[in-house]
Amino acid sequence: MGRTGRRPGATQTREQILEAAREQFAEMGYNGATIRGIARRAGVDPALVHHFFGAKDQVFIAAMQLPYNPADVVRRLVTAPGPDRAEALVRFFFDIWERPETRTPMVAMLRSATTHDHAATTVREFMSHVLQRHIAAEVGISPVRAGVVASQLFGLVVIRYVIGVEPLASASVEELVRICEPAISAILDAPEPDAGDDSSDGR
Amino acid sequence: MGRTGRRPGATQTREQILEAAREQFAEMGYNGATIRGIARRAGVDPALVHHFFGAKDQVFIAAMQLPYNPADVVRRLVTAPGPDRAEALVRFFFDIWERPETRTPMVAMLRSATTHDHAATTVREFMSHVLQRHIAAEVGISPVRAGVVASQLFGLVVIRYVIGVEPLASASVEELVRICEPAISAILDAPEPDAGDDSSDGR
Repeated sequence: MGRTGRRPGATQTREQILEAAREQFAEMGYNGATIRGIARRAGVDPALVHHFFGAKDQVFIAAMQLPYNPADVVRRLVTAPGPDRAEALVRFFFDIWERPETRTPMVAMLRSATTHDHAATTVREFMSHVLQRHIAAEVGISPVRAGVVASQLFGLVVIRYVIGVEPLASASVEELVRICEPAISAILDAPEPDAGDDSSDGR
Repeated sequence: MGRTGRRPGATQTREQILEAAREQFAEMGYNGATIRGIARRAGVDPALVHHFFGAKDQVFIAAMQLPYNPADVVRRLVTAPGPDRAEALVRFFFDIWERPETRTPMVAMLRSATTHDHAATTVREFMSHVLQRHIAAEVGISPVRAGVVASQLFGLVVIRYVIGVEPLASASVEELVRICEPAISAILDAPEPDAGDDSSDGR
């Protein structure tokens, strides 16, 4: 699968870096970990870490085996036309959570975030970073608003897939999308009062 | 505090019943536990359990030391005038989560729901029961819709109070209420398609 051209040992080096990254993140949190520190622990040059993964958030995503990069959510939002972006976001989220192979690592991350203090720190710092640096900035909404949208999608997947509360656990994705879309849209598309629009019904 | 008139030993008997209830719920889940079984385990008459607590959901709430009865949420919703009920609900929820003494038992329940399989079963069954029997029926919305509203509030409090993701963790309650209210309202006040209203914008 596209492995031609990689020099022998690349897979092994990659694994070594990811293992070192998991240790660094667990010890230092997301903010405290550095590419340099991960490279040192893996016994490789920092340039190689960059070469394999890119920036720190990419290393984190690979280390946690997350099925997607939050930057993709942002891109999805930015490229969808205004009225459709709430639905695009909700569908994107369900796509990830409906498939067991992409759901499993997400569940593992959420479980650790609500239980172990170390893991919670890392996940908390990573989520804050994504909300404040990526989503809010690129979508043009306030970080708090971005956080509320994220928390709504988060609540839905935890209740449905992690805890498994009925009737949400066995409702169809279509029904859930139909119910959620207006709520997500009410937050994404509301005028920001600090953006100079003071009406409460404009769009 | 209003203890006058209780016969001696009432507090102790109450504690004995709650201890038995915690064991029953842990062993049998919410659906499997019965007032009769709890009474037998506590060595008291089932009528006494009823006398102290009422129905099974009340016993559960007391045993888990939950700060509120979901029936109160329902009453809050049903008594608030239509356009205000979303805000009333959101404020009610924040009131509970802002105070450490009511937040602590909620956090404990959520932690156990995402980690221990036994506790997860009990919490899952209890939440399903509340959604399907109380909230949906008394507020006049579908159980799935009630579940989506619950999941949104749930996501918000987990992200803000349990995981502590910024900027949600330090945003003001007023800002969060202002952002969330339109979203909750979009779900609570949307016409149910199965209720014979097929327009997508009516209210």
